[in-house]
Amino acid sequence: MIDLNADLGEGFGRWSLTDDEALLSVVTSANVACGFHAGDPSTMRRVCALAAERGVRIGAQVSYRDLAGFGRRAMDVPPEELADEIAYQIGALQVFARAAGSRVSYVKPHGALYNRVVHDNEQAEAVVSGVLRSGAICDGPLPLLGLPGSRLLAVAEGVGLPVVTEAFADRAYTWAGTLVPRRDPEAVVHDPEAVIARAVGIARDGTVAALGGEPIAVRARSLCVHGDTPGAAQLAWRVRGALASAGVRVEAFT
Amino acid sequence: MIDLNADLGEGFGRWSLTDDEALLSVVTSANVACGFHAGDPSTMRRVCALAAERGVRIGAQVSYRDLAGFGRRAMDVPPEELADEIAYQIGALQVFARAAGSRVSYVKPHGALYNRVVHDNEQAEAVVSGVLRSGAICDGPLPLLGLPGSRLLAVAEGVGLPVVTEAFADRAYTWAGTLVPRRDPEAVVHDPEAVIARAVGIARDGTVAALGGEPIAVRARSLCVHGDTPGAAQLAWRVRGALASAGVRVEAFT
Amino acid sequence: MIDLNADLGEGFGRWSLTDDEALLSVVTSANVACGFHAGDPSTMRRVCALAAERGVRIGAQVSYRDLAGFGRRAMDVPPEELADEIAYQIGALQVFARAAGSRVSYVKPHGALYNRVVHDNEQAEAVVSGVLRSGAICDGPLPLLGLPGSRLLAVAEGVGLPVVTEAFADRAYTWAGTLVPRRDPEAVVHDPEAVIARAVGIARDGTVAALGGEPIAVRARSLCVHGDTPGAAQLAWRVRGALASAGVRVEAFT
Amino acid sequence: MIDLNADLGEGFGRWSLTDDEALLSVVTSANVACGFHAGDPSTMRRVCALAAERGVRIGAQVSYRDLAGFGRRAMDVPPEELADEIAYQIGALQVFARAAGSRVSYVKPHGALYNRVVHDNEQAEAVVSGVLRSGAICDGPLPLLGLPGSRLLAVAEGVGLPVVTEAFADRAYTWAGTLVPRRDPEAVVHDPEAVIARAVGIARDGTVAALGGEPIAVRARSLCVHGDTPGAAQLAWRVRGALASAGVRVEAFT
Repeated sequence: MIDLNADLGEGFGRWSLTDDEALLSVVTSANVACGFHAGDPSTMRRVCALAAERGVRIGAQVSYRDLAGFGRRAMDVPPEELADEIAYQIGALQVFARAAGSRVSYVKPHGALYNRVVHDNEQAEAVVSGVLRSGAICDGPLPLLGLPGSRLLAVAEGVGLPVVTEAFADRAYTWAGTLVPRRDPEAVVHDPEAVIARAVGIARDGTVAALGGEPIAVRARSLCVHGDTPGAAQLAWRVRGALASAGVRVEAFT
Repeated sequence: MIDLNADLGEGFGRWSLTDDEALLSVVTSANVACGFHAGDPSTMRRVCALAAERGVRIGAQVSYRDLAGFGRRAMDVPPEELADEIAYQIGALQVFARAAGSRVSYVKPHGALYNRVVHDNEQAEAVVSGVLRSGAICDGPLPLLGLPGSRLLAVAEGVGLPVVTEAFADRAYTWAGTLVPRRDPEAVVHDPEAVIARAVGIARDGTVAALGGEPIAVRARSLCVHGDTPGAAQLAWRVRGALASAGVRVEAFT
Repeated sequence: MIDLNADLGEGFGRWSLTDDEALLSVVTSANVACGFHAGDPSTMRRVCALAAERGVRIGAQVSYRDLAGFGRRAMDVPPEELADEIAYQIGALQVFARAAGSRVSYVKPHGALYNRVVHDNEQAEAVVSGVLRSGAICDGPLPLLGLPGSRLLAVAEGVGLPVVTEAFADRAYTWAGTLVPRRDPEAVVHDPEAVIARAVGIARDGTVAALGGEPIAVRARSLCVHGDTPGAAQLAWRVRGALASAGVRVEAFT
Repeated sequence: MIDLNADLGEGFGRWSLTDDEALLSVVTSANVACGFHAGDPSTMRRVCALAAERGVRIGAQVSYRDLAGFGRRAMDVPPEELADEIAYQIGALQVFARAAGSRVSYVKPHGALYNRVVHDNEQAEAVVSGVLRSGAICDGPLPLLGLPGSRLLAVAEGVGLPVVTEAFADRAYTWAGTLVPRRDPEAVVHDPEAVIARAVGIARDGTVAALGGEPIAVRARSLCVHGDTPGAAQLAWRVRGALASAGVRVEAFT
């Protein structure tokens, strides 16, 4: 059993990026941008309404405040400020999730913040604090979706928050099980067939070939499919079909 | 019986404007900036915590998205966008109000939006739509605080929302009962003694002297005291004292 | 003889909109976004470099400060502020134009500001003031590109600035020679053949069919081709080809 | 002979921070905020006009794009983007400097960027690239004002740019001659008499007492006085008076 998640609603005003409608017919969890790296209020409302209609889970894709850099520039935000910025974003999304008859049911950091909280304990604690602060409008503290072995998930578990691990079918892994950094030319797997095969390997067998070819263990309750490239929705559909053929049930985490 | 409201939390990051702590010991309702004309997440959290501690009501002071103009520049925002921007701001504030053990319990438009919805029916409807959209995270739709006779209050009443009328002790009124526009040199009453006398007149007798001196009727359940001028908190204290001496109970609306 | 102008560089960070490279091989004047409605510094540099390389004129496409609304929401900006915002944008663009060995050589307001200064004398004067303020870094005050009959061009001429009139091949005109407002379903001409025929009519004969079919006179030294729709660059190429076939020289204004 | 510099124009819209008028009667060099951490266009114009009138040099105080954090949060901005952001800010300021009959004549990084380029070679190179790109609207590349021993000044010298060293009379120094980090409780010297004595020591003797009391050598062509604290302008005046009494000429660098 595996969950499929994708980043959605990553436009801003006149600009759009992700094919939200197509992706919402494939994934089981939608990481919705909340206005800090992308995501204007009207887009948030539309994505939440469509997700609710199709029974897709809504998650808050929280970010540094950085529209110009799309949240991809690491920032030394003081922990208290960061915690409050996280809570603000969750609250803003919750209004649209609730209006659609659904609710925000998990949190996933975006971009540079996602990478930072893999190893930065202080910012990991700040993100968790922000999630705790938002608990009062969320039927209790939300689960965090992140990288297995990250400080974020460790800190979250330490305070009793549920955590959900994820893997990437289109990213290369090192033998140590970490992601190959994006600046490395081999960081991203471009061949659709390879992406599909890796998705099945991760979801059915819990393994993926590391750089060099050796299989390594990858534990993941959710699989991230990228939504911001041409053909993304189609590839996601093919991944979902291959999972079904391989006998893997695609279902949101609970 | 009268409510005292003031605009609070109108700083942004390094900049501050209002003496939030002093004002929160005088007013019964706090119009908290939500990040669109002012108000960063950490300031919102601090103001909500202090308001909750002192039993002051928390209202969402919603605005056009215009940090550079402090929300004082009227904007032709399409109604659907405006409604979503209003809902977004209410959701963001609610997370801090709830975390403080309180809740957002009314909405007041700020600056140019406040003035626009006095006469602009389309934008008045958009603000009301935004408030309705936020109802699911607010124990039902919130009351609107605004100018008696405004389109905003009429539209709100038309859909069954509670409304709260307000008056200004330091603004000049025309014989017709409308505010003298700010560009008029006589728009603002600067003499503290006059402000105090007018506050008592409005709260106890329901009357205020219009330009020219003739008394007119002003019905108001709330009195707005300004917080962004030097000595604002002290003047607010003197107003509150004078109301007490005149036998007027100062109490939040319900 | 006619100039072809298009809006370029209208992305922001991760988002892009216009096919800058393709359009820069068709047009003779590039209206470059300066960061207020679109246009990040790196995009501005790239567009200026490419325009300089291809001998395309660089113009400052100035706007209200409104990324969220793409500059399409009219704003009541006080004249002094607006003038300074215009000057700021021109200065920011000039640095990239000069670095590319070219220079900013005209100014065209964008979106809601373009429409506002057709009839709003105060804002038209503010735009002209901003252009005058930027004269010291521009080898003297720049020409303004705008709608024939607009207040903007009248005010500019009044202070001795050169003006350049423009027409739109894909917009419907009233009998009075004004543009049919965008909210009207017939506002935009979608049929490529019609657009091409209208372009030739405007450029060669100075006439275009108004709504209803009657030809009216349109004087224009420049023709605006839109760049933010799919197939925009291709249509622009076809317009340019048709103009050549009709014996109209396509050349930047001087 | 010493230059006195201060950060000016650090408000934004409704918010102000620095007493620009008072400081412009004391300092010889004004570091003017350019809109990325503070500084709206109208404030930039006013500060430039006043500086020009009083014969104060105008410098571009360039920053990360971070209004919410006042440019105090270090950011991993890719070098090309950073260089373009620097150039953009210099161009925007130049328009107001030239309109006032003056010109931008040096560049000083602000806040987190200032601290980052002390040791980060990549960002130091990016800032220098940005300054070089702006050379075409600045009568050639501008001098950089920064910390002695910083990567920024080393990189600038490496490409032939003039550099200007500065010291801080109100900051504690280590024996190694570096600034004591702000998070250290002894980082800032609060006693006005001590600040004045240190200013004279730096300017006349080239020495300052390090933490512990031992005098160390500090070479500085400019002395930074802070403008964003209450009483800042008055303290700056007293520093200037003490320098005069000690026979030190206060004069802008050339």
